[in-house]
Amino acid sequence: MKLAKTYSFIKKDLNQIETVLEDSIYTDHDVLRDASLQLLKAGGKRLRPVFVLLAAMFGDYNIHHVKKVASALELIHMASLVHDDVIDDSNIRRGKPTVKANWDNQIAMLTGDFIFAKALDQFTEIEEPRAHQILAKTMIELTLGEIEQIKDKYNLNQNLRTYLRRIRRKTALLISSSCQLGAIAAGTSRETEKSLFKYGYNMGMSYQIIDDILDFTGTEKELGKPAGGDLLQGNITLPVLYAMKNPSVKNELIEMFKYPETVDKEMLEPVIDKILNTDAVEEARILSDRYLQKAYESLHNLPDIKAKKSLEDIANYIGNRKI
Amino acid sequence: MKLAKTYSFIKKDLNQIETVLEDSIYTDHDVLRDASLQLLKAGGKRLRPVFVLLAAMFGDYNIHHVKKVASALELIHMASLVHDDVIDDSNIRRGKPTVKANWDNQIAMLTGDFIFAKALDQFTEIEEPRAHQILAKTMIELTLGEIEQIKDKYNLNQNLRTYLRRIRRKTALLISSSCQLGAIAAGTSRETEKSLFKYGYNMGMSYQIIDDILDFTGTEKELGKPAGGDLLQGNITLPVLYAMKNPSVKNELIEMFKYPETVDKEMLEPVIDKILNTDAVEEARILSDRYLQKAYESLHNLPDIKAKKSLEDIANYIGNRKI
Repeated sequence: MKLAKTYSFIKKDLNQIETVLEDSIYTDHDVLRDASLQLLKAGGKRLRPVFVLLAAMFGDYNIHHVKKVASALELIHMASLVHDDVIDDSNIRRGKPTVKANWDNQIAMLTGDFIFAKALDQFTEIEEPRAHQILAKTMIELTLGEIEQIKDKYNLNQNLRTYLRRIRRKTALLISSSCQLGAIAAGTSRETEKSLFKYGYNMGMSYQIIDDILDFTGTEKELGKPAGGDLLQGNITLPVLYAMKNPSVKNELIEMFKYPETVDKEMLEPVIDKILNTDAVEEARILSDRYLQKAYESLHNLPDIKAKKSLEDIANYIGNRKI
Repeated sequence: MKLAKTYSFIKKDLNQIETVLEDSIYTDHDVLRDASLQLLKAGGKRLRPVFVLLAAMFGDYNIHHVKKVASALELIHMASLVHDDVIDDSNIRRGKPTVKANWDNQIAMLTGDFIFAKALDQFTEIEEPRAHQILAKTMIELTLGEIEQIKDKYNLNQNLRTYLRRIRRKTALLISSSCQLGAIAAGTSRETEKSLFKYGYNMGMSYQIIDDILDFTGTEKELGKPAGGDLLQGNITLPVLYAMKNPSVKNELIEMFKYPETVDKEMLEPVIDKILNTDAVEEARILSDRYLQKAYESLHNLPDIKAKKSLEDIANYIGNRKI
């Protein structure tokens, strides 16, 4: 099953959002335009707009209103990715060179700032003060997630709680906010809004855990970046945390990260094999499935409209995704 | 005359804003908190809050409403300063080490992102959609100003128009927006709002030109950073543009910037002396005064309240300021 098939009935509306995105990042400044366009054209699943639109269908759906919210959220996601690449010193994403690789960190920082500002500009047409509050809080949490990622780099003494808090901030909240803001823009009941928020939150948690698993189990071709990249950058994700319950894995990691700057792909390979030989990936899948289950359950009380089926299908897809 | 004296009657309200600023950047994360606090405690004139408050006095002044706008604008200013230091690779500002100097570029970037998000959070209590539009547009222009600064670094073929556009984006619009948003938050008439916007815009232009002059005429102690720093970083400001009307100065600069990375303070000194020996600084002062005059004129039609006198006094102060 292809992901896009699960929401083919909103394809036209998604195309409109694509146009909004292209228009909104247009600028006379060559470098800024090229950097932003590179980011836009690098693709991505446009999951946040999809969630905004589907959530809005539980209320008074108006694409002209809702597309502002959807594009704002995708722009915030894009901006956070460029800044993320600066933090992680990443030269490749989705199989293509990053902005910081093609230009430099300063241009990447400014491209992010520019796209953030453009996101706000899209969002100004939304009048509900509560929507603005949610957006601002989400952006604060995103930054806190980034800072935690820096702080916890190479830190092998972190626990499940730290990890979950970090992915909640870095990923889950932007997805739950997408659902919630779609609902608010369409004026659903508070109860519906809450259910959609919960769905998004749990989907986001599951999505990130699977992302972190794929970083170990995927091939470079599937990932669009080298496998094991997270660990190489010092990001300690769920499979690593679980694998470290085995003292020999933990000791090997401690040894390796004594001199983090010396760690390269070749050194990493045997460690990754060792991690894959534990139950870590399976355990991580179980936790991801638990969030997925909660995501399904959050939809229970919602009316049986087409959008609900799509949200279920997306959850199903995410649970089984390979890329 | 001390600047603060010109608006001593709003001192209590400014103290409230200081508290809002301190509270709003508080976070459990040590690095982020320390970096943000360092930035806050480094001082600064809090000019943008002053403009917001004074402008609001032409309408229905309510400090509880208006302080949200004032602190949001100061936070945006602070955030842009941290990102600016990354762009300019500056290690010192206002006599103190910058965030990027005390930590690194990544932390500086995130600190900026965090403070930006906190600014938005403050601003969410403002309901007028027009206010949000103005804020978003101002942030877009700020970023464009930054990118122009990078683009035009070491570019000796830029003209007055490019320079004025850059300082409009980098400085003037945030000040004019401060005045305008203060007016909007206090519900003044559109005409009053427009006059205050014009005042702010012209003040901002004048302010930046004087800043650029002081970079040549000030001492390291006065500036809180080495004199000639702009030129050292490749930023071609108004005095340089005027001085280059003298072909020998222009040639010397062209020669020097053939290898920008070799330029240091010692190499710069004779060039700065040469620039100071032209009419450049005087000419720049004349242009600054022209903007200042326009700022005064913008106030003509406004009622003679205390705030008007303060705005005039500030213009007067800025015109004569030495630091």
